[in-house]
Amino acid sequence: MADPGFDDVLAAAARIAPHAHVTPVLDSRTIDALAGASLHFKAEHLQRVGAFKYRGACNAVWGLDADEARRGVVTHSSGNHGAALALAARGRGIGCHVVVPEGAVAGKLAAIEAYGATLHRCAPTIAAREAMCAQLAGQLGARIVHPYTDPLVIAGQGTAALELLAARRLDALVVPVGGGGLASGTALAIAGASPHTQLFVAEPEGAAETAASLATGERVTDFMPDTICDGLRGTLGAINFELLKSHGAKALVVDDTATLAAMLLVWTRMKQLIEPSAAVALAAVLAHRELFEGRRVGIILSGGNADLTALVNA
Amino acid sequence: MADPGFDDVLAAAARIAPHAHVTPVLDSRTIDALAGASLHFKAEHLQRVGAFKYRGACNAVWGLDADEARRGVVTHSSGNHGAALALAARGRGIGCHVVVPEGAVAGKLAAIEAYGATLHRCAPTIAAREAMCAQLAGQLGARIVHPYTDPLVIAGQGTAALELLAARRLDALVVPVGGGGLASGTALAIAGASPHTQLFVAEPEGAAETAASLATGERVTDFMPDTICDGLRGTLGAINFELLKSHGAKALVVDDTATLAAMLLVWTRMKQLIEPSAAVALAAVLAHRELFEGRRVGIILSGGNADLTALVNA
Repeated sequence: MADPGFDDVLAAAARIAPHAHVTPVLDSRTIDALAGASLHFKAEHLQRVGAFKYRGACNAVWGLDADEARRGVVTHSSGNHGAALALAARGRGIGCHVVVPEGAVAGKLAAIEAYGATLHRCAPTIAAREAMCAQLAGQLGARIVHPYTDPLVIAGQGTAALELLAARRLDALVVPVGGGGLASGTALAIAGASPHTQLFVAEPEGAAETAASLATGERVTDFMPDTICDGLRGTLGAINFELLKSHGAKALVVDDTATLAAMLLVWTRMKQLIEPSAAVALAAVLAHRELFEGRRVGIILSGGNADLTALVNA
Repeated sequence: MADPGFDDVLAAAARIAPHAHVTPVLDSRTIDALAGASLHFKAEHLQRVGAFKYRGACNAVWGLDADEARRGVVTHSSGNHGAALALAARGRGIGCHVVVPEGAVAGKLAAIEAYGATLHRCAPTIAAREAMCAQLAGQLGARIVHPYTDPLVIAGQGTAALELLAARRLDALVVPVGGGGLASGTALAIAGASPHTQLFVAEPEGAAETAASLATGERVTDFMPDTICDGLRGTLGAINFELLKSHGAKALVVDDTATLAAMLLVWTRMKQLIEPSAAVALAAVLAHRELFEGRRVGIILSGGNADLTALVNA
């Protein structure tokens, strides 16, 4: 499959329109005052399954031809992508198998099962997950939908930025980066819809391999993530790295304390329940006032599947 | 001042339009499925100061003539009304003094001070609060704006239901009841805008004097509230009782466990951060399926100022 481009984002927007929500853009004058900037929050925590991941999953599921679709889909995921693919597959009436690592967030696994997928547990390493995925795909003849390197997934994730850029004129757009599906899809959307908008990717200090990769020009893959942002522990994919590099994306690294403070700010002032991984972009904007002061800044609130039980018992 | 009527709600809507938000109406297919009904949530936690109270406070502040306004306003409040009056007073550029009981939620007091009001602490009894209010009002010549018996406050609170009834055709409307400002204002809005809509008031078991008052036809005032719903501990006012009684409102009583479960449902499925007092109406709907099944039901999510620090440390 060729690398995805802006046309693929447009095609994804048309393909997912009957299934995914056009999420609202939210504002907060209190947070604007704190940031000294005009912030525009794309509310992907209000997307179906509570995360932007539904966009890419829908694009992948509805992008299958009838013969492929009959054999179902397989993926591995620490949470939101698994739930998203399960719901998208149920929407098309096809099977979905999800390989999940031991130690994944309980609430997210429950959601995946509730959407009708079959769970397969494995050791919490990339190698173990990919091996079990390949084995299942071989047995079933099913299509593997990778959480962030699949071109249809990348194009689907780009539709969030496409909608935001259609709604607001932006000087900069800041998105969280883990594996890079949202970040690289956003790069495609910016390139086609608003090339003057600067792209920043925000990353937790305990999983900052994207910043290291962009700084050195070589993709870093050997690291052990250590962050509360459970959605951002994946390793930046090769295709995602190339797209971010060629677009000139800039990485901003923030520590978990700043991310938790930003999350609580969104909870208390905007009354929106976002997950830690979604707060990293706002944390980056607040930590780098010099980059954003006086500008119009878009932020993608990527998801809202916080494990409240863990929080309340912490 | 004469008892407020539907015309006063219409006048309030016009008076507060430049200051208060028209809040969105939210839906959740997951919660609809649980309730077996079509629920329409009026998102007053997204109102300014995070609660419907801003409506009544604005109507009272902007309803003063120039001479009254110069001398400022005084009130007592366990939280949201104090913050709302402080912000409304600041909007008109007049002084605001707020008597707060010892033991009030810390986050709410901080909000009142942040809006520029002067705090005056007193013992946590109605008598102590009213005495200090009267004393301050005498010293300053300032108008006392009672949190729920003031006719302008009642009419202002009715504008939330007015907006909801303009946006949705409803068979029933369910609102939380504490002192009764929102409940009686809602009764006025229904009477004028949608008389076929049934009014239910939802009340915590540990402060269920409205249910007792409506059942006996005599207002119960001698009780000691015991509920996590800190916004619903006030005693139903005399004028509020008369308005609810003459409208034929029905009371539904729910325990705090059901209210917390409903709150978590809104947090996890709608990603909206509401406070316990706001969840009591949904709890009542879920506990009384026989009353609401298959019907179009409005619910006012009254506020979002939950004390997250207390929750996380609990």
